[in-house]
Amino acid sequence: MTRIVVFLLWIVLPPGPLFSAEPLLPLPPPPAVSRDKAALGERLFHDPRLSGSGRLSCASCHRLESGGDDGLPLPSVPTGPYPHNTPTVFNAVFNFRLHWYGDLHSLQKQALVALQRDMQVDWMRVLKRLRADRLYPRLFKPLYGIIDADGIIDALVTFERTLVTPNAPIDRFLRGETAALTPRQRQGYRLFKQYGCSACHQGANIGGNLYQKLGIFGEYDTRDPGRFAITGKSEDLRIFRVPSLRNVAVTAPYFHDGRVETLEKAVALMAEYQLGTRMSKEDIALIVEFLHSLTGHYRGRALGDMP
Amino acid sequence: MTRIVVFLLWIVLPPGPLFSAEPLLPLPPPPAVSRDKAALGERLFHDPRLSGSGRLSCASCHRLESGGDDGLPLPSVPTGPYPHNTPTVFNAVFNFRLHWYGDLHSLQKQALVALQRDMQVDWMRVLKRLRADRLYPRLFKPLYGIIDADGIIDALVTFERTLVTPNAPIDRFLRGETAALTPRQRQGYRLFKQYGCSACHQGANIGGNLYQKLGIFGEYDTRDPGRFAITGKSEDLRIFRVPSLRNVAVTAPYFHDGRVETLEKAVALMAEYQLGTRMSKEDIALIVEFLHSLTGHYRGRALGDMP
Repeated sequence: MTRIVVFLLWIVLPPGPLFSAEPLLPLPPPPAVSRDKAALGERLFHDPRLSGSGRLSCASCHRLESGGDDGLPLPSVPTGPYPHNTPTVFNAVFNFRLHWYGDLHSLQKQALVALQRDMQVDWMRVLKRLRADRLYPRLFKPLYGIIDADGIIDALVTFERTLVTPNAPIDRFLRGETAALTPRQRQGYRLFKQYGCSACHQGANIGGNLYQKLGIFGEYDTRDPGRFAITGKSEDLRIFRVPSLRNVAVTAPYFHDGRVETLEKAVALMAEYQLGTRMSKEDIALIVEFLHSLTGHYRGRALGDMP
Repeated sequence: MTRIVVFLLWIVLPPGPLFSAEPLLPLPPPPAVSRDKAALGERLFHDPRLSGSGRLSCASCHRLESGGDDGLPLPSVPTGPYPHNTPTVFNAVFNFRLHWYGDLHSLQKQALVALQRDMQVDWMRVLKRLRADRLYPRLFKPLYGIIDADGIIDALVTFERTLVTPNAPIDRFLRGETAALTPRQRQGYRLFKQYGCSACHQGANIGGNLYQKLGIFGEYDTRDPGRFAITGKSEDLRIFRVPSLRNVAVTAPYFHDGRVETLEKAVALMAEYQLGTRMSKEDIALIVEFLHSLTGHYRGRALGDMP
């Protein structure tokens, strides 16, 4: 008898907190790190001497005053055409893997690949110049002893671990402050869950923690083989790391190839290719309003409101 | 009654000329071309001034004194890693498409891509230098008037159309001279047809005239998406242009990635992945002996016997 009542209730009641746990989680606090190493890393992050040309720094493609990316469809690196839209460095520490293929398993590995492949670092020259610098030897000494590649990478990564953006309206909402979202944003969040967006864009980073096929319902128009390029397995064709949606309102353009310019278009394409449905304009507008509530703060200011 | 007799004959008789037309054809004569344009093209083909660095000519990767390729697993171009083994320029005129993806539909297009992408031609500089040359203006004048990119491409292509390698033992055999193949080569040819190699490697160029999936029986170990990279269609994953087998004995290493060093290995892999069978060592040896009969002549000498 009890079972029948529960079953009837389950049929009749709309999905809600009683039956579905919240798929999103508030952003955790940044990992505790050495402030001195982070400060050194920040200096290195902005130092173009780390690139072979002397003109590129980490900050050239990961602009902290905007969304932690470059705002371009595809980055412009000196080594030729680069196939993927620059992922934001903000909250990267919370991704399970890095890059669109998810082939980089740690911030250390990402920093090394970015320096060596994209920035064409000449380590011998860089170490020589930093060792002859007025300031660096004094900063490295107490933290790492000498200046070497390992120390540079470690300082950079330590700084990156501080690049988290707390206090987005969604975080305050998830902590119980209902009014942090506007009524339309709350409607948008409900739709976000009902349509199933939150099946992939979930957890603390609202994505960034699993792989998914681009184009479950119909072949998405791309010549990018996805993780097949890493594994050589047919089942990995068009499989990409699901990106985090945090700060998505300030990191246009979108998708792996940067070909999608607006959130409206991005939501409509996701609905069509990932969920096999067509959303009404109004539903898209509500979800986009919700996506604006995912923009967090860095150094006391909301991203996108930077001077 | 007649049908039954025919059916019984079909069952009893071994496959042979009575029931299967020869899948291979003798090499056609080279297309008729202007000798003066071909001579000019030959000069350009060997001229390193056509490359941005001034150090690469067409002949750097397409060495006519060996197999019309570079003998390397992958070519070494100044623009970074190049994913595909260099196809031979010999008999390229008889391929239905060019390159491993078959994305280039004409010799003109191939020459243009090779010059612009791989050789990083600086057209302005090249035209200036050729126009100031002692010889080129005199050669171009009666053929093309002025020296321009179109004329350069046309002369190169005209020369390439002369790069055919007739008089391979297989051609003499196919024209009726049975003794042109050794008895073991004839056995190898029979196996080549019986196993089904000639389903793809057929016609005048013994391949080069259709697309096929690499790895029909089992996933071949490669991260190369094949024609998917051109079309973005899932069904084109691992689809490549079937290469010509003419002169295959002098164009090691093999396959799109140049990872296969010997003909024995190449035949064994093809048997496993394309035909779903394991060949005995003896059968492989016989087929390899047959493959040596596909080596033709260029300027009166067998390829591979060049000084």
